[in-house]
Amino acid sequence: VVSEPRDHRVLGIDPGLSETGYGLIGPGDGVLAVLSTGVISTVRDLPLEARVQLIYEGIDTLLGSLSPGLVVLEDLYAEYRFPRTALLMAHARGVICLAARQRRVEILALAPGEVKRAVTGNGGASKEQVQHSVQRLLALRALPRPSHVADALALAFTGYSRSGGRLP
Amino acid sequence: VVSEPRDHRVLGIDPGLSETGYGLIGPGDGVLAVLSTGVISTVRDLPLEARVQLIYEGIDTLLGSLSPGLVVLEDLYAEYRFPRTALLMAHARGVICLAARQRRVEILALAPGEVKRAVTGNGGASKEQVQHSVQRLLALRALPRPSHVADALALAFTGYSRSGGRLP
Repeated sequence: VVSEPRDHRVLGIDPGLSETGYGLIGPGDGVLAVLSTGVISTVRDLPLEARVQLIYEGIDTLLGSLSPGLVVLEDLYAEYRFPRTALLMAHARGVICLAARQRRVEILALAPGEVKRAVTGNGGASKEQVQHSVQRLLALRALPRPSHVADALALAFTGYSRSGGRLP
Repeated sequence: VVSEPRDHRVLGIDPGLSETGYGLIGPGDGVLAVLSTGVISTVRDLPLEARVQLIYEGIDTLLGSLSPGLVVLEDLYAEYRFPRTALLMAHARGVICLAARQRRVEILALAPGEVKRAVTGNGGASKEQVQHSVQRLLALRALPRPSHVADALALAFTGYSRSGGRLP
């Protein structure tokens, strides 16, 4: 058995100041497998700078321990329903970009529609449809929850396909 | 002559992905003096993660060399005229908050109207009025340029007043 190179691991991240979801996929046991998922949470009581530090340190630790070859994020888009939430998300996204850069991990930013299309076949799919498609594509026993983790796995899956990752 | 404690130095920062202006004020030669100003610029050709890294490293270096006791930023507000620019600004603001946190420098976020009122007497003052008021208040020979530097100095001045800084 030849071990797969770590470079084939792809980490999807769905940034948010309150909850940043992540999911690592890569070759495992002859199939494309989910290797790790989780959420980095920060509470509202903390000042903004403490929250971005927790997210930065959490992502930095993940990059160090999981050694992905690629980080996949959702690209910025023009209109957000909640502008203030989007601005806070962008603070989190900024420190995540910094952590990846410092660890010399490449970042791929994908349009939300492209990710939905890649996993469900429909660029306008709902969050629930994305969750169900991710469960099916990655042969998960349970529905990936919360939706931040499902979105992170959808990003990782799409990035894996796009970056020429082949199913083993 | 007793040297003033470094804690009395206040660093105002006006974050932007293309241009982040900064200005340090503090007691100097018996008056409130501008001790350092500048702009950290990043070019559009670079990927976002390289740009936030340049801003992070620039601010981290400033914090190390200037040793401010306080960093003052503009607080987030509800409506930005250019949502995409605001989202990119927030990436820069996120890594600036991180750098200050890591250096254990306190951050004060002030509403734009409060800063304009403190330096011009008018919460709805124009950028030009802020530049002229900053020039007068800090006895600068020339108008502070670009406006990012004037805004950073206005933030520093207001933060200095608010944090109980007394003119020597």
